Amino acid sequence: MTMQIGFVLFPNLTQLDFTGPLQVLHRMPDSKVHILAKTKDPVPSDCGLGLVPTGTFAEAPQLDLICIPGGFGVAGAMADDETVAFVKRQAEGARWVTSVCTGAFLLGKAGLLQGKKATTHWAYVDILDICGAEPTRGRIVRDGKLITAGGVTSGIDFGLSVLAEVAGAEVAQAVQLGIEYDPAPPFDAGHPSRAPKAIVEKSEARYATARQGYRDAMAA
Amino acid sequence: MTMQIGFVLFPNLTQLDFTGPLQVLHRMPDSKVHILAKTKDPVPSDCGLGLVPTGTFAEAPQLDLICIPGGFGVAGAMADDETVAFVKRQAEGARWVTSVCTGAFLLGKAGLLQGKKATTHWAYVDILDICGAEPTRGRIVRDGKLITAGGVTSGIDFGLSVLAEVAGAEVAQAVQLGIEYDPAPPFDAGHPSRAPKAIVEKSEARYATARQGYRDAMAA
Repeated sequence: MTMQIGFVLFPNLTQLDFTGPLQVLHRMPDSKVHILAKTKDPVPSDCGLGLVPTGTFAEAPQLDLICIPGGFGVAGAMADDETVAFVKRQAEGARWVTSVCTGAFLLGKAGLLQGKKATTHWAYVDILDICGAEPTRGRIVRDGKLITAGGVTSGIDFGLSVLAEVAGAEVAQAVQLGIEYDPAPPFDAGHPSRAPKAIVEKSEARYATARQGYRDAMAA
Repeated sequence: MTMQIGFVLFPNLTQLDFTGPLQVLHRMPDSKVHILAKTKDPVPSDCGLGLVPTGTFAEAPQLDLICIPGGFGVAGAMADDETVAFVKRQAEGARWVTSVCTGAFLLGKAGLLQGKKATTHWAYVDILDICGAEPTRGRIVRDGKLITAGGVTSGIDFGLSVLAEVAGAEVAQAVQLGIEYDPAPPFDAGHPSRAPKAIVEKSEARYATARQGYRDAMAA
């Protein structure tokens, strides 16, 4: 049985939320990766890069794993009935329902976080309760078939972790070696608990509008 | 003065070699990012994802920073006179000439590694001498205006390092925090010196054809 893996694209997603786990999960043995959107037109990402879907929501088979990336476009996706309905319908039959970064809020809008432990980008974890979730800090949070990852680059760790679960540690280690994932960040600033305080505060201010956007989109 | 940053796309590139540093470098203050290819048609990547360029080689302004991603498509790009000529011409006027992963071999084909310390994906570092380079193991290797990064995910560290150099540590730390780059790989298998020996050997076998491809493309 071929494992059907699907990523959900929408305008103004953070492209690395998607391209990180894509690079890892496309190495899943006996799998087919679907890059899905409402139409086959290129989807604009946050970096000015257009991403070409491989298929539409309407054409997609039942997915075994569905993954929702995040980004400032998530509030728009939450307001789009067709996108929300697609996520909800697919999640019912999927073995793994997953998100990276603020993609968690689209799962939330589809009613999939109710009573579940979930995480998202560090700047938004505390408001996951608007989706009925139990906000849980962490880089990868698992609750049954739900797997939510933290901000952006968490998606790489998430991908390797799912690969190990499904295909075994050796396959995941080979992929980790193949992508030379031996990270050496030039600063220890990737987590709010260790980044300089002034930088954390400035960043939080930057996310205030998006936080309100998720509240509004959940309430709508 | 706006900093002109350009990525060079070619068929069958490893998309994360490009999308990783793109996510970081598009946050460079006062900059414009160009995603360049021979034509404006979507460029197929190794993951089945089509990437839409923002412009063509012919339309590109003089770049301040040129970045060449890698992947199994590099040998094909080395055999393409228009691509090699574009890289060579742009590199003359650029302040930073850079590559991620096996993109180094395209720089080599353009004559840009002669007598320089350079790195690439771990499985190919030892053959960088075919380009006249001094093969140098490392995640980011600098020699004058040349910056070469190691395999795939090295591009994220490379991007942050360039961002810090050009815009300062605070900007780079804010971006690192924004992409929650606080990596927690599930295994310590991202470097050949620490991955299980059997996995390294199997991986090396997988790269044998590509190694020969770079030799042939340099000799052609």
